[in-house]
Amino acid sequence: MDNMEQVQLREIAPADIEAASFTIIADELGPCQLPPAGFAVLQRVIHATGDFSFADTIRFSPGAIDAALAAIRDGRDILTDVTMVAAGINKSLLAGWGGSVHCRLGDPAVAELARSTGRTRSEVAIEEGLAAGGVGILAIGNAPTALVRAIRLLAASDPANAPVVIGVPVGFVNAAESKMLLHHSPLQHITSLGRKGGSPVAAAMVNALLRLAAA
Amino acid sequence: MDNMEQVQLREIAPADIEAASFTIIADELGPCQLPPAGFAVLQRVIHATGDFSFADTIRFSPGAIDAALAAIRDGRDILTDVTMVAAGINKSLLAGWGGSVHCRLGDPAVAELARSTGRTRSEVAIEEGLAAGGVGILAIGNAPTALVRAIRLLAASDPANAPVVIGVPVGFVNAAESKMLLHHSPLQHITSLGRKGGSPVAAAMVNALLRLAAA
Repeated sequence: MDNMEQVQLREIAPADIEAASFTIIADELGPCQLPPAGFAVLQRVIHATGDFSFADTIRFSPGAIDAALAAIRDGRDILTDVTMVAAGINKSLLAGWGGSVHCRLGDPAVAELARSTGRTRSEVAIEEGLAAGGVGILAIGNAPTALVRAIRLLAASDPANAPVVIGVPVGFVNAAESKMLLHHSPLQHITSLGRKGGSPVAAAMVNALLRLAAA
Repeated sequence: MDNMEQVQLREIAPADIEAASFTIIADELGPCQLPPAGFAVLQRVIHATGDFSFADTIRFSPGAIDAALAAIRDGRDILTDVTMVAAGINKSLLAGWGGSVHCRLGDPAVAELARSTGRTRSEVAIEEGLAAGGVGILAIGNAPTALVRAIRLLAASDPANAPVVIGVPVGFVNAAESKMLLHHSPLQHITSLGRKGGSPVAAAMVNALLRLAAA
């Protein structure tokens, strides 16, 4: 127990923790070439991961943030690949504009269709979610297969009117490749190149946009 | 679109993706001093984050894995600090032993108690969840305040019979300190020192244990 007493905790009110964290992140990052809105997105990603390497890998298509803010303010929905991304999104901020968060991954019909066609559940869930319409932002934090399928579907139809794609799958098999594909696509997108990413990164990007939309 | 065609995706069946990822991780990690069960936990953390630095920061108290496996096999519950951790846990594997996953964060009574006492909702949610009993594993992926409160409560009562604590909050204010406190505590624990961590890390650790329990 002696060792426990040597650990010094910072005394801070709960309401002040986020602002203190964001100050530390800005201070340690130093000069950043991103415009303020892009910086706000990056800052929240670093806040969610403790990982400054996202400053080197984050990418925005020109106009991505404006398109995402317009989608939020129009009350359009957010579709996610996995429930962890949906769980991390600030749904009350989104509801203020009339939008809601959807994830089809747990739908038994999706599981059955995936089994019968030999595809991943995530891929089928994204297809079904996009087909239902009303999606302003597609947030993919886990499944490269879902991101690849979404890019091909959306790029082949009407890229200019497609949802903004937040595509940050994590992993070792096709995750980096799927994000490179997104980055080279005609779709409005926010991504992070390389292997890193994940549900908290996707949720942090969405939440930063929700804060910007409300500002 | 020409650039899109230059991106080479690996052709692989959905059922083979996880095994292929785990092979890449083991190959790139190289020799590792962890015993096989600890290595399985680390491997799943790297799989969830794309981040090999967890190999340097992961820590297990002696006996932590055995205690966690016993808790799972006894059908005890898992309490999480945030819904994202709960969302990431393989609940069907846990249900096979009779356990279930709980998170009190969305409980209106918890929010009210946090407001009236000036504490974080996460902290109050953990207190209430522990008081309800039946918890075999406490998985904290987000809130340092919740981890600190849990350590103090559990270390002060009966550490030998306390839940195993998987404590991996992420962030810049007291996250590293809370994990150092856990590491110096008498509690059975799995953690990762430093700022990094998060919901997918906590969920990956739990899921690795659920696979080990089933093996």
